[in-house]
Amino acid sequence: MPHKLIRMQRTGDQTPARRPIMLAIAGDSAAGKTTLTKGLAEALGSDRITTICVDDYHRYDREERKNLPFTALHPDCNYIEIMEQHLQLLATGQPILKPVYDHNTGQLTRPELVEPREFVIIEGLLPLHTKLMRACFDITVYLDPPEEIRRQWKIRRDTQKRGYTADQVLAELERREPESEAFIRPQRAFADIVVRFAPIAGRNDPPGTPLSAELLLRPTIRHPDLSGVLADSDQRAIHLRLDRDENGRPVDALHIHGYAPREESQVVEKAIWSQLGVNAGDPPATLGTLDTGERSEPLAITQLLLLYHLLDATR
Amino acid sequence: MPHKLIRMQRTGDQTPARRPIMLAIAGDSAAGKTTLTKGLAEALGSDRITTICVDDYHRYDREERKNLPFTALHPDCNYIEIMEQHLQLLATGQPILKPVYDHNTGQLTRPELVEPREFVIIEGLLPLHTKLMRACFDITVYLDPPEEIRRQWKIRRDTQKRGYTADQVLAELERREPESEAFIRPQRAFADIVVRFAPIAGRNDPPGTPLSAELLLRPTIRHPDLSGVLADSDQRAIHLRLDRDENGRPVDALHIHGYAPREESQVVEKAIWSQLGVNAGDPPATLGTLDTGERSEPLAITQLLLLYHLLDATR
Repeated sequence: MPHKLIRMQRTGDQTPARRPIMLAIAGDSAAGKTTLTKGLAEALGSDRITTICVDDYHRYDREERKNLPFTALHPDCNYIEIMEQHLQLLATGQPILKPVYDHNTGQLTRPELVEPREFVIIEGLLPLHTKLMRACFDITVYLDPPEEIRRQWKIRRDTQKRGYTADQVLAELERREPESEAFIRPQRAFADIVVRFAPIAGRNDPPGTPLSAELLLRPTIRHPDLSGVLADSDQRAIHLRLDRDENGRPVDALHIHGYAPREESQVVEKAIWSQLGVNAGDPPATLGTLDTGERSEPLAITQLLLLYHLLDATR
Repeated sequence: MPHKLIRMQRTGDQTPARRPIMLAIAGDSAAGKTTLTKGLAEALGSDRITTICVDDYHRYDREERKNLPFTALHPDCNYIEIMEQHLQLLATGQPILKPVYDHNTGQLTRPELVEPREFVIIEGLLPLHTKLMRACFDITVYLDPPEEIRRQWKIRRDTQKRGYTADQVLAELERREPESEAFIRPQRAFADIVVRFAPIAGRNDPPGTPLSAELLLRPTIRHPDLSGVLADSDQRAIHLRLDRDENGRPVDALHIHGYAPREESQVVEKAIWSQLGVNAGDPPATLGTLDTGERSEPLAITQLLLLYHLLDATR
């Protein structure tokens, strides 16, 4: 029956769809995916970017999951094959009818049409789970906060926004731990960039000091040359160190210090922004905004680097 | 960025999916699509066939449609582009996450996973609307009852099963008529087989006489050679006539008479079944069942012919 395939191909749209730049932001629940994504989306503008959360691909709703032997983290609890299919469609510039999971009610509701714009950010628990998914991305990021920090973030969000008690959140974290280990954390090995927001051990910074960031820059994609910027800076705000990752592979470890005076960080940001040569003027002011509304320069610098990669990939 | 396409293709499943045989059954609301489909599905068995109604691809629910300048028949009221995409995916053996429209509540609900089996029947209002959709099918059928008959069927179904009054149904039919003319009926020209169930003009058959069927067999697919069967029969139950369709193109018109004694029709059915050489034994007993539970030999013969085409296409 290959004649039918040929007929379908010949009948399809003759002008190839424009292929968007695809960025994956993977990480466990409350690892900071939405905050990171939001700043990028605001910087690029809603007419240039499509953001999708692959947690919408849950196979079961909250009520059904109560009777199942696994949590929402498990691949069997998600339409992995459809995720792969939809990522391929988006990566080739085609629209999808995306399922919708309502985090407030825990129900699956009517799907929605999503058309890929110039940039597509896919964030969620499992966007790097299979080889075919990973093949769909230009840039892959894994968010890797220390578990203690993530626990605090998850309790704050789920009690404030999703109607749970702190005890319920802690019980759920415990229930999910074996599946986090089995399915979520292994994705770290496939990220071009691993981002870890954390306080720096041994320092006694005053309350309100933004978390520092450590970014592992794997040589799987071409990172910007930061040597000029870093030589110019006084190394207080940001520095780069050759290191090995947990698997012994060589990486650049970029440290961005939350305790550095804001002015110094902003000098570094401007220097990166202008050196990257992607645009004139100041870096977008929306970068670095936390979900509390406060500003974090390490977050801003992290987003700036991702913005560089998004814009660089179009060239 | 073609490297990403190559990477996706190389990473994808190496064993090509088995491609199903695809049959379209198009026609206006209450034209008999479900009844025709049901008998075929029962004859082939639920492990061999997938049936899909493309009316599930409504873009708006019943409430939203009240404020729109068109009815559910209008292509703008449906995700045509997604229909095209999903038909292509099914035709190449891939699963889809199909939207679901609940005819009882008029709401769009959670989508469902559909995997194509050996045969896929796509029935609905608009499955032959675009060239790309049509390219996905092996066999295309258009159901074309006289408007007066369809009106009776629609009133009966919508008052009995969907909670409308007869007056509401008649008003809706009137509101839909311009869109029926513009979008539904033009699909007739693209069908390999046009099926018309109707009483025969000029006859005064007693109440309860099954409707006769006229099947236009267009030379766009290879139809079975019926000359032997028809020569053997006494021409009361069934006869074939060379004709022209409404566009002047040559067709075979197969007439199956509802007033013929059941025994004669069944002789013809058995003769067709054995001559088609697709299987031993009697034709499947479920063929010919109307939604009232009564039996119609013209329906059985129509389904038999479609069954022939489905099985023939696998060879």
